[in-house]
Amino acid sequence: MLDTVDKDALALSQPFTATLLRLLRAQDTHGVWESKPDAEILKDFVVTKEQRRAMPIIGDPDPDVLWRIEMFYTAVGLTVEAETGVMAGPMMKMSHEGFGRLVLIAGKLIALSRHLRDVHRFGFDDLTALAAEGAKYVAKARAEIEAHPEVARV
Amino acid sequence: MLDTVDKDALALSQPFTATLLRLLRAQDTHGVWESKPDAEILKDFVVTKEQRRAMPIIGDPDPDVLWRIEMFYTAVGLTVEAETGVMAGPMMKMSHEGFGRLVLIAGKLIALSRHLRDVHRFGFDDLTALAAEGAKYVAKARAEIEAHPEVARV
Repeated sequence: MLDTVDKDALALSQPFTATLLRLLRAQDTHGVWESKPDAEILKDFVVTKEQRRAMPIIGDPDPDVLWRIEMFYTAVGLTVEAETGVMAGPMMKMSHEGFGRLVLIAGKLIALSRHLRDVHRFGFDDLTALAAEGAKYVAKARAEIEAHPEVARV
Repeated sequence: MLDTVDKDALALSQPFTATLLRLLRAQDTHGVWESKPDAEILKDFVVTKEQRRAMPIIGDPDPDVLWRIEMFYTAVGLTVEAETGVMAGPMMKMSHEGFGRLVLIAGKLIALSRHLRDVHRFGFDDLTALAAEGAKYVAKARAEIEAHPEVARV
């Protein structure tokens, strides 16, 4: 069985996680993250079950969590682009109390559509779950693009 | 030649304008607009050339103007739905200083995509221009839906 360090290293080497890391490091214009390890950069994406239980059930999402959601789906879009050659970018609409909708747009196609809820508790059990969820959405979006190339490739 | 009153009456009778009016009146939960004529309800959608010239070139859009843009494109979507039977709703993403993007989503199809600029100066020369622009976007979105029914009708 893999221990946590090995599991994290494996998760960090996946294409989606590597893309998310590059995207986040690219935002670090002042170089304050340069010496930080990858797992540290992604630590706010990990919300353990215990942490989640300690959060209020209903809450207004703060700008940081909205930014992390935007980065997560931007990384999904960039990974899709690397695999298909089709650019895909997110648009998010928040309504009230952490409910909303996110779409990933490729050309004229909605390659992925997600109804968001409990946005203030956005996060993953561990890096392995983060990598798996990212890869799942990449695969979904890619399948849509391949099913409708005439709408996606415009 | 039609005088202004006749021109306004003609504009207000168009399907798009009638839909926008119904939508706006539906938001009037306290009945304060009940006795107001239609042209009065739409008056903030009219920004004359003189008014526009008096506005700063760059400005941050206020919530009222973002609300009017959302209502305008929601009415485009409702008119499209009445004509095609396909639901279409807007999503808007604002970046900085009044730049942004608006999409009208029908099923998995982007039926209309508009890059927005100078959002703080959103408005139309008169009700005739409002009716004409609305009808133009309805026709565009409808043509997209008819070109890609398998993506729009899901």
